[in-house]
Formats: sequence, C-alpha cells, structure tokens
Amino acid sequence: MRRIRILVSYDGTDFHGWQVQPGLPTIQSAIENVLAEIEGNPVHVDGSGRTDAGVHALGVCAAFTLNNPIPTTNLRKAMNRLLPGDIRILDAAETSLNFHPRFDAIAKTYEYRVYREEVCPPFVRRYVLHHPYPLDEAAMIAAATLVEGEHDFTPFASTDESDVEGRSKVRRIFSSTWSREDNELRYRVRGSGFLKHMVRHLVGFFLEIGKGNATAEDLARLLNQGAKVQQSAPARGLTQISVEYPLP
Amino acid sequence: MRRIRILVSYDGTDFHGWQVQPGLPTIQSAIENVLAEIEGNPVHVDGSGRTDAGVHALGVCAAFTLNNPIPTTNLRKAMNRLLPGDIRILDAAETSLNFHPRFDAIAKTYEYRVYREEVCPPFVRRYVLHHPYPLDEAAMIAAATLVEGEHDFTPFASTDESDVEGRSKVRRIFSSTWSREDNELRYRVRGSGFLKHMVRHLVGFFLEIGKGNATAEDLARLLNQGAKVQQSAPARGLTQISVEYPLP
Repeated sequence: MRRIRILVSYDGTDFHGWQVQPGLPTIQSAIENVLAEIEGNPVHVDGSGRTDAGVHALGVCAAFTLNNPIPTTNLRKAMNRLLPGDIRILDAAETSLNFHPRFDAIAKTYEYRVYREEVCPPFVRRYVLHHPYPLDEAAMIAAATLVEGEHDFTPFASTDESDVEGRSKVRRIFSSTWSREDNELRYRVRGSGFLKHMVRHLVGFFLEIGKGNATAEDLARLLNQGAKVQQSAPARGLTQISVEYPLP
Repeated sequence: MRRIRILVSYDGTDFHGWQVQPGLPTIQSAIENVLAEIEGNPVHVDGSGRTDAGVHALGVCAAFTLNNPIPTTNLRKAMNRLLPGDIRILDAAETSLNFHPRFDAIAKTYEYRVYREEVCPPFVRRYVLHHPYPLDEAAMIAAATLVEGEHDFTPFASTDESDVEGRSKVRRIFSSTWSREDNELRYRVRGSGFLKHMVRHLVGFFLEIGKGNATAEDLARLLNQGAKVQQSAPARGLTQISVEYPLP
C-alpha cells in the first residue's frame, strides 16, 4: 500500500466545489472516478479543505492510498489523460502513509481578484469579480493589515458553521494585503487556516469599506467580537493559491 | 441614419466562428440579435473578415447602420448588458456611412500560442495549442521571417477557397515572428490580409519544421509556387489581435 500526494490545479467554474455531492460534478469526484479506473477499485481522495462552487485553485494538495504499483510520473500522466482539461495534476509523489493534506497543513494562501475597468475582457471573466464602480481603494489597502495576527473570526464564518458550538473560530493570519495590479485590485491572504466562507466574507467587508459603507474601525471592532457580517463576495473571483506543509 | 463602428473582443470557444450560420451560435448572430433588440428592427453587422470556430479576438472591428439615436456610450453599455460575457464591446463610435470594416482594412494581426510545458494550466487551456513534445524552436524562429514580403499563398489557402479560380492568392506580410515567452512559443503575424485558414496552415507548417519533418528551404520553395500543404494547427491557439485602418 502506498500513499500518494498530488498537487492539483483547477478552473472551478463548471464544478460544484471540491467535495463529492451525489449527482453533481465536483473536483473530488472527478479525481476519484479517474483513480478508480486506474486502481480497478474505489479510491477515496483526501483534500486540504473544501472549496465552494466556482472557486479556483492554482495548486492545492490532495492525497490517497493506492495498491497499484504504477510509477508516480506515469500516474500523473494517466490522471491528466483521463481528467477533463479544467483539472490538472501538476505533480504526484510518494508520501508517508499517515500524511493527511488537511490535518498536516500549516498555512494556506488565497487570492481574490476584482476587475476595475468598465469592460471586463472575455479572457479573465471566469476568474474575477467585475466591479467597475467607485471604490476607495486606498482605504481598503490601509485596512487590510488589521486582519493580520490571531483573531476570533466568528463574524466572518458562514452561518451553518457558526451553529457548531464549541469549535474554535480563532485563526492566525500571517499576511493580509490588498494591492493594485494594472486593471485589478487583488487581495492576498495567508493564514494557518480559514473558516468556511471566511475569505469571501472578508472580501465582502473590504468592499463595503471601499464603498464608504463601513470603516477600518468597524473592521477592527468586528475582529475578536461583534455580530455576523452579511456581506459576501462572489466565488468566481477567488483562487486558492497554495497549501503549505512542514518540511519533511 | 448613422453608421457605427465597434471594437469587439471575444472568447471563441463556445461559438461556431464569426459568421451567421442558421441554428448555430456565432459571434455575428449574437451581436445582430442584441442590436435588433435595441433597434426594434433587424440589423446587419459587417465584420472585418470571418474567423473560424474556436478562434478568439482581442479587438476586431465591425460596423452596422442604425436609426436609433442612442449615444454611442450608452449603446456600448446596452450591448454589453445584453451580450453574454464571452463577447464584449470595447468601444463604439460614429463613423462615415460608407465605412466597411473588411474593405477598408489595411492590416490585420494574428497571434498563435503554443504551450510547451508538459502540463497545461486549466486557466490557459482555451487559448493555446498544448504541444509538450520536442520542437526545434530555433529552426522555427529562424524560418519565420521567410514569410515576410509579398507571396502567392496558394499552398496555405483552404481547399474550398482554392477552388475559386481567378481570385488572387497574393498577400503582403509585414512581419512574421516566432518568439519564446515563458512557457509558450508564440507566432505573431501582421499582413495586408489573409486567406481562409492561412494562419493555421502556416503554423501547421512551422510545427513540421519544428518536428524536423520539413525545412526552411521547403517553406521558401512553397512560397510563390508549390503544392498545397496538408498541415493545419487547431483553432483554439489562434487569436485575432487587431485590424488596422487608414487614419481618417
């Protein structure tokens, strides 16, 4: 028995997120179907976390256990041959039998792209939120770092997750920045872990700051206390950039 | 009556090319449908030329005649509101009543992208030919300029166009270059005009040079004489970059 770790990149537009859902196309089921074909038996794939419908991934980690002795290079090639073009296996490697992509992760990075010009080019439309309306970008850029450090992110959790009593909503954010890159405003956030919908809720709140409906002080007040925020940004602009693990 | 000139950008993946074809989604019919809605009457759109199914456009010109007095800025906004996101109107402006985007064009530019790494990222797959196999890129780059100048491009015309006797197949190419840009090999060609399928046939022949199945000398021999070439490159990698017109 072998444990294989893969690095996966996908365009999430046409999928209902990562996790298997009966009757719906998801990234996890697409990969599991292909592995079942290679293995000749059902294979369960562990992900590094769920992503919502429409969210993309530049390179995220997943892992599974296999009996087939196929070399990892050939396995990667076979998987890419069988998978649709919007899911690609960038790498496949042997790992320890107890490696788990979710529990062993030490950091994750997300990026949210907001397209600022009036006309959104057809070639980027799947990967950005198109928001050509006025925004106080300087205020958003200035407020970004408030999120850094250890905070109780309850206000930015999804409603269903908030219902689970007793699970800590404290997360450590290592960096949080908004920056202007050509026609786009981009949010990059790296942290120890993220609550469900947390990045989209943060982006939603930053957009309210940009619109003048909220201030940096409101954000500071919400972090560590406060009621739930209502604003969430659409999935399409969000890409999970990477998941980090300790050096072996 | 007014003549309007528009600049159009589109992702051609889900369309059967530019030209109206009964029962099939095309760029021209999508735009004509939207204009009919705005005008309240059928509107014919003149393009700068046909593009094949799957070919993209960064910014090409089209024109139509309208009675509706709507200001051009509002017209652009209304069209973008009604069109699907994979077709965008970048600009709309008044032009002279006799302007024709095809007959008045003085130059067109195309780009063909070849993705060279083994795994093609999901985010570029719609816009490139994925060719991770060995290619003598230096030979392709060196042969590119042979196409420049005035030549009879009969060998690179599509078969159906070749059947039309008497129409000149001579075209003037102003520049023709292959270049390496990160993980891609890109062909840029600017000319007075192009025969149907000409760019894809040229790229197909260059790829044969890259594979060692043909030489620069073969290409030189074909230009101005020679039998038809069989090689054509897939549409997905091709983008029409621009169409140029004389200064008013």
